[in-house]
Amino acid sequence: MAFDWNSITYAISMLGTVAFAVTAVLAIRSKSDIDIVGAIFLGLITATGGGTLRDLILDVPAFWSQDLTYIWVATLASIAALYGRSFFYHRYLFALMMYLDGLGVALFSIQSAEKAWALGFGLPVAPIILGVITSIGGGIIRDLLAGHTTLVMRHEIYATPVILSCSAFVMILNYYPSYRVFGSILCIFGAFALRAAAIYWNLSMPAFAIKAQDRN
Amino acid sequence: MAFDWNSITYAISMLGTVAFAVTAVLAIRSKSDIDIVGAIFLGLITATGGGTLRDLILDVPAFWSQDLTYIWVATLASIAALYGRSFFYHRYLFALMMYLDGLGVALFSIQSAEKAWALGFGLPVAPIILGVITSIGGGIIRDLLAGHTTLVMRHEIYATPVILSCSAFVMILNYYPSYRVFGSILCIFGAFALRAAAIYWNLSMPAFAIKAQDRN
Amino acid sequence: MAFDWNSITYAISMLGTVAFAVTAVLAIRSKSDIDIVGAIFLGLITATGGGTLRDLILDVPAFWSQDLTYIWVATLASIAALYGRSFFYHRYLFALMMYLDGLGVALFSIQSAEKAWALGFGLPVAPIILGVITSIGGGIIRDLLAGHTTLVMRHEIYATPVILSCSAFVMILNYYPSYRVFGSILCIFGAFALRAAAIYWNLSMPAFAIKAQDRN
Repeated sequence: MAFDWNSITYAISMLGTVAFAVTAVLAIRSKSDIDIVGAIFLGLITATGGGTLRDLILDVPAFWSQDLTYIWVATLASIAALYGRSFFYHRYLFALMMYLDGLGVALFSIQSAEKAWALGFGLPVAPIILGVITSIGGGIIRDLLAGHTTLVMRHEIYATPVILSCSAFVMILNYYPSYRVFGSILCIFGAFALRAAAIYWNLSMPAFAIKAQDRN
Repeated sequence: MAFDWNSITYAISMLGTVAFAVTAVLAIRSKSDIDIVGAIFLGLITATGGGTLRDLILDVPAFWSQDLTYIWVATLASIAALYGRSFFYHRYLFALMMYLDGLGVALFSIQSAEKAWALGFGLPVAPIILGVITSIGGGIIRDLLAGHTTLVMRHEIYATPVILSCSAFVMILNYYPSYRVFGSILCIFGAFALRAAAIYWNLSMPAFAIKAQDRN
Repeated sequence: MAFDWNSITYAISMLGTVAFAVTAVLAIRSKSDIDIVGAIFLGLITATGGGTLRDLILDVPAFWSQDLTYIWVATLASIAALYGRSFFYHRYLFALMMYLDGLGVALFSIQSAEKAWALGFGLPVAPIILGVITSIGGGIIRDLLAGHTTLVMRHEIYATPVILSCSAFVMILNYYPSYRVFGSILCIFGAFALRAAAIYWNLSMPAFAIKAQDRN
């Protein structure tokens, strides 16, 4: 059957990969120029960098070496974003990319936590850390390469949904292991809902979570 | 007995981890703001980044995956540094953190050189390189993420004590292997003494070690 | 016989290592100062960083841990570049370093593609990616550490010859495996010729490969 959970997560993976690569290339627009080789490099490293870091730390083969579809999809999405950027800057398409990025982040982080859990890697905390590394690692490398302020220094609600959902998922795996599949679906959509709300209402971290002198 | 060498090094490890995380979060203060999630991320990566790089290169499991205490200690220290920074900026406490950072650097570099030596990794030079990577890797990642000038481009006496002590330690391991424990204690405190002197007298690299035009 | 292909590639490797380290240290000149420890660190990481990333991803020991000559050569070249920079800034010597850098890039990328191919790593695309990572990884780390605009954001023709030659080499390995040695020589010198032409005529990426608004 085509609409089983594996097919759905695979489709979301690819949409997330497209969104990572496209938003990386679009983010370059107003700050400086980039050529096609640079765009592909930036799109590829943003789409695959976090998962590659995770696989290095878990000492398993880089996920893209076992399914090159990720490479092709990220490459084509980067080229499309470079040459079709006026198209991608259409209001609704840009918003769609933001939400797909959020959906990709939500999925990849839970998948990573599950991968680390299955390998018994530093339970129970390390799977949460690997979920965070996977979902924001590529974006941090992108910011460094492009000379932007890194995610770490912004008040965007980006990593917080990942930490909450991975923590919840690890608790489910620990206390209710029979709800693994249902729990992963719940946590993915929970993380996505939080991120989507942050995008929709343009939220940032609440004042109590920020240093005092910056509130003045 | 509670005061054996292993307990002492473990206690120093934890103090060093606290100092790495605290100084990372305090370093952010005047340049830009950070929220609690960013502070924890920055503190954690500074405290564990160098050792993680070492373990990736040595192809052994990341040290924190086998003892999550490092994660908890760095997380709590980061939170404390964010919310208690006026406390940490107290003159003597800030100085204490600087010295504990130096003690952590001295310990971690010798431990890494020993780990690489025990694995027979690229003897005799690679253990020195891994000692340096471990002790300054986290700080370099911190500088990159925070948008600071990296350690590499400053004249601070930070890596030099590590290079000297790791070189001395490798010579002891090679020529006087029976003095391994005594030699490691000597090299740790030698490196710490050099770094402490640099902090106390606010030393930087001597002129002959710096490019000529910058001396004018 | 001394002039077999292995000896020649080894000699080119060492010349490339020298060129990577020297150009890294010389690139610092006008932007800010650096001390001898920083210079060695920067030269070493530029000369070995790309290959280290490749070996981490391929899960094989870092190449320099098995032949420390790379470390010694890069260290000495970095020191020479720091103290003898007026010598290295002599017009022809500087140009020589640029061409040797190009030759090193051409060789290291094909060697990496071959290494990945022999390991059956993500065929047929991943060997091309690893060729690119090896040849430009060190330079990107250097740019990040030194606070320069990264290669990714420049229009220099640097990665393009590598992508073309690695792609051609992978096709040869796939369709004409018996021409492996001859094909590797051809691809190395093809990549070098393209890069040398780009240096000699000071070429950058053609307009159609750059974003439209930057052409105006």
